Amino acid sequence: MAHPLQALRDAMAEYHIDAYLIPTADFHGSEYVGAHFACREYVSGFTGSAGTLLVFANWAGLWTDGRYFLQAEEELKGSDIRLMKQGQPGVPTIEKFLRGSLQPGQTLGFDGRCVDARTGRRYHRLVRQLGAKLNHQLDLVGEIWTQRPPLSARPAWLLEEKYAGVSRREKLGQIRAALTAEGQDVLLLTALEDIAWLLNLRGDDLPHYPVVLGYLALTREGCTLFANPTVFSPQDVDALEADGVSLRPYEGFAGYLGRLTPDQHVQLDMRRVSTSLLTAIPSEVKVTDRPDPTEKAKAVKNPVEIENMRRAHLADGIALTRFMYWLKTQAAGETVTELAAAARLEEFRQEAPLYLQPSFDPILAAGDHSAVVHYSPTPASDRPIGTRGFLLADTGGHYYTGTTDCTRTYAVGPLTPEQKTHYTAVLRGNLALAQMVFPAGCPGSSLDLAARQPLWQLGLDFNHGTGHGVGYLLSVHEGPQRIHWRPSGPQTALAPGMITSDEPGLYFDGAYGIRLENLLLCVEKDTTPFGRFLGFETLTLTPFDLDAVCPEEMSVQERQWLNDYHARVRAALAPHLPPAEAAWLQTATRPI
Amino acid sequence: MAHPLQALRDAMAEYHIDAYLIPTADFHGSEYVGAHFACREYVSGFTGSAGTLLVFANWAGLWTDGRYFLQAEEELKGSDIRLMKQGQPGVPTIEKFLRGSLQPGQTLGFDGRCVDARTGRRYHRLVRQLGAKLNHQLDLVGEIWTQRPPLSARPAWLLEEKYAGVSRREKLGQIRAALTAEGQDVLLLTALEDIAWLLNLRGDDLPHYPVVLGYLALTREGCTLFANPTVFSPQDVDALEADGVSLRPYEGFAGYLGRLTPDQHVQLDMRRVSTSLLTAIPSEVKVTDRPDPTEKAKAVKNPVEIENMRRAHLADGIALTRFMYWLKTQAAGETVTELAAAARLEEFRQEAPLYLQPSFDPILAAGDHSAVVHYSPTPASDRPIGTRGFLLADTGGHYYTGTTDCTRTYAVGPLTPEQKTHYTAVLRGNLALAQMVFPAGCPGSSLDLAARQPLWQLGLDFNHGTGHGVGYLLSVHEGPQRIHWRPSGPQTALAPGMITSDEPGLYFDGAYGIRLENLLLCVEKDTTPFGRFLGFETLTLTPFDLDAVCPEEMSVQERQWLNDYHARVRAALAPHLPPAEAAWLQTATRPI
Repeated sequence: MAHPLQALRDAMAEYHIDAYLIPTADFHGSEYVGAHFACREYVSGFTGSAGTLLVFANWAGLWTDGRYFLQAEEELKGSDIRLMKQGQPGVPTIEKFLRGSLQPGQTLGFDGRCVDARTGRRYHRLVRQLGAKLNHQLDLVGEIWTQRPPLSARPAWLLEEKYAGVSRREKLGQIRAALTAEGQDVLLLTALEDIAWLLNLRGDDLPHYPVVLGYLALTREGCTLFANPTVFSPQDVDALEADGVSLRPYEGFAGYLGRLTPDQHVQLDMRRVSTSLLTAIPSEVKVTDRPDPTEKAKAVKNPVEIENMRRAHLADGIALTRFMYWLKTQAAGETVTELAAAARLEEFRQEAPLYLQPSFDPILAAGDHSAVVHYSPTPASDRPIGTRGFLLADTGGHYYTGTTDCTRTYAVGPLTPEQKTHYTAVLRGNLALAQMVFPAGCPGSSLDLAARQPLWQLGLDFNHGTGHGVGYLLSVHEGPQRIHWRPSGPQTALAPGMITSDEPGLYFDGAYGIRLENLLLCVEKDTTPFGRFLGFETLTLTPFDLDAVCPEEMSVQERQWLNDYHARVRAALAPHLPPAEAAWLQTATRPI
Repeated sequence: MAHPLQALRDAMAEYHIDAYLIPTADFHGSEYVGAHFACREYVSGFTGSAGTLLVFANWAGLWTDGRYFLQAEEELKGSDIRLMKQGQPGVPTIEKFLRGSLQPGQTLGFDGRCVDARTGRRYHRLVRQLGAKLNHQLDLVGEIWTQRPPLSARPAWLLEEKYAGVSRREKLGQIRAALTAEGQDVLLLTALEDIAWLLNLRGDDLPHYPVVLGYLALTREGCTLFANPTVFSPQDVDALEADGVSLRPYEGFAGYLGRLTPDQHVQLDMRRVSTSLLTAIPSEVKVTDRPDPTEKAKAVKNPVEIENMRRAHLADGIALTRFMYWLKTQAAGETVTELAAAARLEEFRQEAPLYLQPSFDPILAAGDHSAVVHYSPTPASDRPIGTRGFLLADTGGHYYTGTTDCTRTYAVGPLTPEQKTHYTAVLRGNLALAQMVFPAGCPGSSLDLAARQPLWQLGLDFNHGTGHGVGYLLSVHEGPQRIHWRPSGPQTALAPGMITSDEPGLYFDGAYGIRLENLLLCVEKDTTPFGRFLGFETLTLTPFDLDAVCPEEMSVQERQWLNDYHARVRAALAPHLPPAEAAWLQTATRPI
């Protein structure tokens, strides 16, 4: 059998494709892709979660971001695939690269099912400008990948209303009303989280979050879910039918789109719908490109979800705090490794009755691993947590009562004064952001200053967002809100019920990294003649490591914020901890 | 003679105009307009500095903003002009109003010389959608206004290089190089401040800032200023000619535009160029709409301008501080009025040898006048400053060495505890913003949190921007940078050399208002492995009123910021004050 890259080039020659693009994507624009969609990994050998491969007959390049430079270098060794380090000086974007390399008359190809319509349009414009051609209907990797895993077909299940808070029927009515108000006839949803949220439906078709492969068409009268019928129990099919949701085969969606008629107003989000699906819609149909109404609705948690999320964070706080106790009192020494620590934390989480699974690959990073923002230990990289410096633990869980995401950085032994200063600066930013009060309408970009100012004052900074939205038993990263001072495109205002992370960090390449993350629930604070003011309730409940704090570098107010938080943690967790751990917690959360 | 509104309606009938729009504008989009351009005031009787009149045969409305509701109500009394309060619930925008009232086949008219091209296009689109027509070539007010003041023709003068810092020749070279690099052949400038900056030219054709009515065309080879030749001395004409600037009559500009040829690439800013001028350009000419390169260049002050600005602020600080001494020690009692206080402050300013004129109408606001953000005393509104509460003084000066803008709010007698809390909150915001350190690239919108958080924490806020750019012996309000958390359109990063105001406030209708304003110079702070960090140097030098401060509501750090600032003020001003005032300053700036 030929090497996959050679096989791909043979297929390209056969189909007259001069440049073939393989993104890391499924048909739904999901954050992580299932085994069936690991095309880029299959051809390139690079196993990271993000990257795009571009193949010519005599050149191939893999574009990926800073998280993966080291890993990609390692994994591409021996291949003739060039590593293209995104964002580094002198490294062109894929589009710029194509502009300089695709010749007039040549053809660029990709599988249009895996490229969103907006990106697809950009490539279309590009080839037109170059006098080249586009073929977005070829799944060449599918042609050559003989052992390709089938599409996932794991069981689907319905999320009970005591967890979801709002019934499927009510959600359908709410989104349908929004649709009708906008004068639209059909809403097409292709993002798996949005479909899962709307139908109170969960499954197991993606790594890290429990969704079902499917498409959805919501009309003024009905609702059709296009999904593999074999993954549903007869009872669940009946329950969906009873709420007006009919089930059709997953493969039938493109045909459904082809039968849309010119009198229908169709709404979709071109950032989420694929190029192939968009072109399946007859050109006479009136299509409106707009953010899916489910995106904002899903981001604003309902009262039941909020109360459940508090419960999930109590359970998670117990697990995290028992882990911290274990780490600080028993795991000392050289023997415990990152993977062993991750396994121990997972055991603590599994003791919670409503726990399901990790919400992402746990990051347990010792020594200079902690400076790699998205490091996750593997058997090859695993190392003992050591006896000095930091252990960074960024982990989260899916519970029936919601999803958690928490980062703590622990001192596993002596710290230098500089390390303490750095930890304290990150902590001051984390605490300050959580205290902010702001008028309704304010986007996260206007709040980031609070988290970064303690670092900026010291000439320090971190190169990632301060906050992302968090789903309810869905993706741990969701939009539309975010917290980053650099506004990128239209800003979404924070709204009561949104849950957003608060995770400033600080990273010294080759030395150490610090990140401290709590989840914040946006809440009403006050309504005065000057307007409606919002603020945050901190959901995460586990101590910051006082061994790493310099109290003298904190203001009276900052110390008060920390002490108040620790008092809340203590009061919430102590009743649920074994006596020795409860006693230890008193010290670990002592006022400073 | 008919009432102007009736005369206008007669003219509208004669020219078959069904709706006529009169903005408050000159041919240059200036912030303030000269007497020749007071068309809206002439027809409506409303004297405020902002507003748009829309006249139908049987209906007329004046749109203006919150600053002017009371004044407009008063001045429109007895007319049949309806006051349309911008931004109030239920009040449509002019465009929305036209959408509901202009009938198919009807004609909307305005003087296209007074409407910028971007706005003109919006009206064009609107009438097209309505099946109506547009006539932008009628100056109907010009037809009926028999006593109309002529165009200003006050003497022009050249700003010496010791004040401007960079020669005219060098600036022309710099902007021309930018133009050439962009592949453009002609840059058209119509904003008076930009022309004044580029040519080191000043005049007296507008209220409040010293500019010359003119247009400018910069080409790869030459530069033509279209202005009234009689306002220039022969020496100045020679000096301009020597630097490659030829003078043509003001009225010749439209003709010049008409002679542009299709092979020329012309750059202009459609937010600044008028509808009439844009349509004067032959349609085959390639026009690029882009912010004027002079806007950013003018905002970043050169080293000489910066040093001069520091001198202007020292002179201004002396005047402001002598005024404060006079106010706090001698003006007590009921007799001194707002206008008298303004006159006294102007006297102090005039003692500075390089002082020219106020940079805007002084705001001296006693009692509930201080709650009106843009109140300015008139003989009709004038009142004694009283013996309790606040006097708000927002004033500024033009000096040869630059332009100042400072607001202080003074206790003129006893304050309530609540008034002190409010003053202290505004002060805390003012001080905090000045301390911010931030990465290069950060826009003002990401810093506003610092100024507003002390207010937001108390459920308080203010309904204006926190900061605007300030010109050098030009408009006291200039772009492109600003400080407001609500990002409106593309954001401009703060850059070293920019001067921006820091002016949080707080207003209680019918009771009192507080505003505290310093000008901040953006400066380099540090360059570290994490990037280039910027910060501020406070230019304004005059005490905050300690009689209004609650030290116990300030953190240790906030008190330190205030004490450090007051120490700077003391050190800078004391040597320049008479002994009694210098002694008083010691107390007025005592550490708290």
